[in-house]
Amino acid sequence: MARVFNFSAGPSTLPEEVLKQAAEEMLDYKGSGMSVMEMSHRSSWYDEIHKKAAETLREIMNIPDNYKVLFLQGGAHMQFAMVPLNLKKNGRADYLVAGQWGKKAAGEARKFVSVNVVASSEDKTFSYVPKIDKSMLDPNADYFHITTNNTVYGTRLRDKDIVCLDNVPLVADMSSNILSEVYDVSRFGIIYAGAQKNMGPAGVTIVIIREDLIKEVEDIPTMLQYKIHADKDSLYNTPPCYSIYMCGLVFEWIKKKGGVAAIQKINEEKAKLLYDYIDSSNLFKGTVEKYDRSIMNVNFKTGNEELDKKFIKEAAENGLVNLKGYRTVGGMRASIYNAMPVEGVKALVEFMKEFESRNS
Amino acid sequence: MARVFNFSAGPSTLPEEVLKQAAEEMLDYKGSGMSVMEMSHRSSWYDEIHKKAAETLREIMNIPDNYKVLFLQGGAHMQFAMVPLNLKKNGRADYLVAGQWGKKAAGEARKFVSVNVVASSEDKTFSYVPKIDKSMLDPNADYFHITTNNTVYGTRLRDKDIVCLDNVPLVADMSSNILSEVYDVSRFGIIYAGAQKNMGPAGVTIVIIREDLIKEVEDIPTMLQYKIHADKDSLYNTPPCYSIYMCGLVFEWIKKKGGVAAIQKINEEKAKLLYDYIDSSNLFKGTVEKYDRSIMNVNFKTGNEELDKKFIKEAAENGLVNLKGYRTVGGMRASIYNAMPVEGVKALVEFMKEFESRNS
Repeated sequence: MARVFNFSAGPSTLPEEVLKQAAEEMLDYKGSGMSVMEMSHRSSWYDEIHKKAAETLREIMNIPDNYKVLFLQGGAHMQFAMVPLNLKKNGRADYLVAGQWGKKAAGEARKFVSVNVVASSEDKTFSYVPKIDKSMLDPNADYFHITTNNTVYGTRLRDKDIVCLDNVPLVADMSSNILSEVYDVSRFGIIYAGAQKNMGPAGVTIVIIREDLIKEVEDIPTMLQYKIHADKDSLYNTPPCYSIYMCGLVFEWIKKKGGVAAIQKINEEKAKLLYDYIDSSNLFKGTVEKYDRSIMNVNFKTGNEELDKKFIKEAAENGLVNLKGYRTVGGMRASIYNAMPVEGVKALVEFMKEFESRNS
Repeated sequence: MARVFNFSAGPSTLPEEVLKQAAEEMLDYKGSGMSVMEMSHRSSWYDEIHKKAAETLREIMNIPDNYKVLFLQGGAHMQFAMVPLNLKKNGRADYLVAGQWGKKAAGEARKFVSVNVVASSEDKTFSYVPKIDKSMLDPNADYFHITTNNTVYGTRLRDKDIVCLDNVPLVADMSSNILSEVYDVSRFGIIYAGAQKNMGPAGVTIVIIREDLIKEVEDIPTMLQYKIHADKDSLYNTPPCYSIYMCGLVFEWIKKKGGVAAIQKINEEKAKLLYDYIDSSNLFKGTVEKYDRSIMNVNFKTGNEELDKKFIKEAAENGLVNLKGYRTVGGMRASIYNAMPVEGVKALVEFMKEFESRNS
């Protein structure tokens, strides 16, 4: 079978040329006589892969020198706990809750700190991103936590719309839109993201942390201390080497495409293709506020559950797979991450048109 | 370059046929049109991979029905904390310390429980496994922790030599010899192992846990609770899917070889080839008590640091790589895990003979 267009929300499609390179290097990485999977994490072979992945990420995200890049495990879920455990000082934290993951992050943090939900869009099933102003934020909070893209509901918070206080570290879960559009890293205290959307295979979590936030926290599990991982350059214990290697290849791919700003332009075009058609359609409707629409996760529905099911089934038969919406939302969701080619989006729009003409 | 014989202690060599299959399936897993890395962890494609990996492991390890098999993240280091955090009751635990990893495990546990070191072989740089009897064990300990194979120093604790109490859960770190020899799982409360020696790429940790030990522990990070992962069949959050897929392929490979008992026989033969030569050599000496010798990690030295260096360098030039001993031990270490073919061990012995004849 040919490769499909895979609209999965995560783990999700990866650049075909990256997968080809990985397949070619599987039994013998650059003449080492072994797979990257077989390399000691203390070897010079792996060391180069590890360092280069971090360096390339620094370059494409324009990460300032006073930030560390960490490769950790446990996904965003582990960060939901590590952030409060490591940043706790006054024992208070602000959360902006604009989706399911923000809600989960706040829920986990409640185990360790007093959580203040600054604003939530749960009243309208997270169909928008709440607008806030500085007066709503606690100047004595240990940090302020946001989610820049809401994978489930398909909304995003643009860099220019982020409101935060200068003296309260801004912490962002960027799992589903890291590297898809430009964010000014220097505004953030911590950025974290599971790899499995825009970076690589599941099993590695990127944490970008400002150095002044890295401190000794003795009474928590060693593996949950940012300081240990920062001091050891993410080699305190065996890291998920192969996943880091794959991320490195994806970072290189982004660099070759012209970097994040160039990728953002392509992403905006891809999203526009889809949203423009949805807005012109009599059958399909978008599900969130237009301004807040994600350029990564595009939700839409017909309003008829049976018809939605039929669409998802027939799309899959046409090589457009994983279009089913999240179980709590229903309808359809097309995740069009960096690695989704514009051809995939065009094919989806063509199929939607054809489906609409047959079913209206 | 041809494939080398890779004696790395971990991450370490994998079966060539497994790597070949992974390379072949990289862009299109069995007609799915996508890589395993690109699959939603909620898809039926991945579900089958996930379940089959656990089932095959159950089969080859003969895991009783009242045990759960979990695929977690964070390596043995994370288990060093998860074990005390989840099994804590009386707040006391017994540790047998026969190597660096056992010592680390005990050190981490001290953050959470009162640790009693039942016996330690640190007095003789861990060159043997301490012998104990039941009278030395605390009947009110929450658990008794052992390490079945000491990767750094090259010793092992055989199944038949394990001393434990019936009413105290036995917890074993099997990271470096799981699936290499037969252990009776029914004696254990928890067995855990990082994948990167005998199972697959770094980034997934296998935990085999008896069901009665799985209980609610509310005040710790959700990701550190065995119960969450057991209840959700290791799909509470996105698991390291690709690493689990690779482990599944390795489990199948072991099954095809005849299972763990058959692999053990091969491993014993491989180890004997090497130890027999070391014992007959005038140049090379083993470094641990003969009875306690590991069949996975074979340490030896010439007694002359310069000569050791020369050996390691020349061996590498002959395609026998990663023979350098651990930094705290020096000398040489040949890790001959399941995936190291007997040809690799024979080639090493031949090279040792040749080196000895040139240097004595």
